[in-house]
Amino acid sequence: MSSETEALAAKVEGLLARVDELESRAALRDLVSDYCIGFDRHDWDRFIAIWHEDAVWAIGEPFGDFVGHEGIREAVFEVLYPAWRETNHLTTNLRIAFSDADHAVASCDVDCMGASPDGVVQMVGATYKDTFERRQGVWKIARRDVQMHYFNPIPGAEMTSPQGN
Amino acid sequence: MSSETEALAAKVEGLLARVDELESRAALRDLVSDYCIGFDRHDWDRFIAIWHEDAVWAIGEPFGDFVGHEGIREAVFEVLYPAWRETNHLTTNLRIAFSDADHAVASCDVDCMGASPDGVVQMVGATYKDTFERRQGVWKIARRDVQMHYFNPIPGAEMTSPQGN
Amino acid sequence: MSSETEALAAKVEGLLARVDELESRAALRDLVSDYCIGFDRHDWDRFIAIWHEDAVWAIGEPFGDFVGHEGIREAVFEVLYPAWRETNHLTTNLRIAFSDADHAVASCDVDCMGASPDGVVQMVGATYKDTFERRQGVWKIARRDVQMHYFNPIPGAEMTSPQGN
Repeated sequence: MSSETEALAAKVEGLLARVDELESRAALRDLVSDYCIGFDRHDWDRFIAIWHEDAVWAIGEPFGDFVGHEGIREAVFEVLYPAWRETNHLTTNLRIAFSDADHAVASCDVDCMGASPDGVVQMVGATYKDTFERRQGVWKIARRDVQMHYFNPIPGAEMTSPQGN
Repeated sequence: MSSETEALAAKVEGLLARVDELESRAALRDLVSDYCIGFDRHDWDRFIAIWHEDAVWAIGEPFGDFVGHEGIREAVFEVLYPAWRETNHLTTNLRIAFSDADHAVASCDVDCMGASPDGVVQMVGATYKDTFERRQGVWKIARRDVQMHYFNPIPGAEMTSPQGN
Repeated sequence: MSSETEALAAKVEGLLARVDELESRAALRDLVSDYCIGFDRHDWDRFIAIWHEDAVWAIGEPFGDFVGHEGIREAVFEVLYPAWRETNHLTTNLRIAFSDADHAVASCDVDCMGASPDGVVQMVGATYKDTFERRQGVWKIARRDVQMHYFNPIPGAEMTSPQGN
């Protein structure tokens, strides 16, 4: 190989690693979005696909901690959905730090507007602390810790759709 | 061409496609942001630039569906602006799926805090389902469907700026 | 260099510039997130790291304008933290325009839910107008202007964590 070609090859290898990280950022952002979309719209396939088989979902008070796909299924169907008539999670401030090409920690902030089964409108503010791992080429959540900042009703508010859905 | 150069050329072609998709992601995110900024700050040039000429904006109840730039102009100036004294749209959870390099569908979630002309503060939660197309090298919205989850007043709240603007 | 290698080198140079801009977008998004995380969680090292030494933070009414790291320290510890028991900033709609590889202007929208020291829950909506500069290879904020759209209490609401933190 000529020295020009060698220099070019080195640049391309550098680009491959940088583009891989940019694509990883997009993949991690999608996981964070799919948590909200999957949970709020009751799309179980989308929701469970974001978690590794042995993932830990440490919600803490008032709901508890859950381990593995079976634990997560229990959290969703036996604990959370019975506690909410509807939820609307919005996540932002996603801040990712890679330790290597396949491991990252991140935090994001969430605003959730929801209604309890008796129709009380609740506002929830929390931070999710995530550990992401890429295994067999696929990024998923290995652990999510939930730190709640507030969880309170909006006095007198109702939550209804003008579209009847 | 040498075999080394050929292998390098193949890697570069792969990178070009991957970088193009990453840039498309940024462009689509900008469209979603410009919808909010353009509408909320009454920046019509920014707002109309996100829509293809034949775009469909299916808001549904309580506002209706609108087609093409003329329909969108009618929606904004004859239907929506008269219904709102001010709006503040925040979109998040943007989730894009490409079907090819020039076509994508996506959803995002919006929280809108606004005030009606008589000063009632409204909170709106909705999902936008978008069809994006790149035509002549420019990404725009071909269709946006609005699914409203709630649209309700915050009892007793006011909406005023300490800066008088 | 052969003409094939020359053509390939030109493509790689183009990619280097495009990937640099994509990485800059990620870096600017991190600055915007670190503003929220640093301020809300009282992480001063994270917060001050987003500002150039001579940065201007023009909050305007009701808090004032602040210049340089010393001015920003005064704003945080003598003006803002005494005015808030807690804050929860969520930024979205980040819209960046590069003027060259090292300079960009941007805007983003923020929703902040907070509580004053006497426990009154406040909702704040604002737009941040940012000037970003890359100096010595590091992107930071050179100037942030705050335009507040509303700043009002939610009547009767409280803000408490079920986790006691």
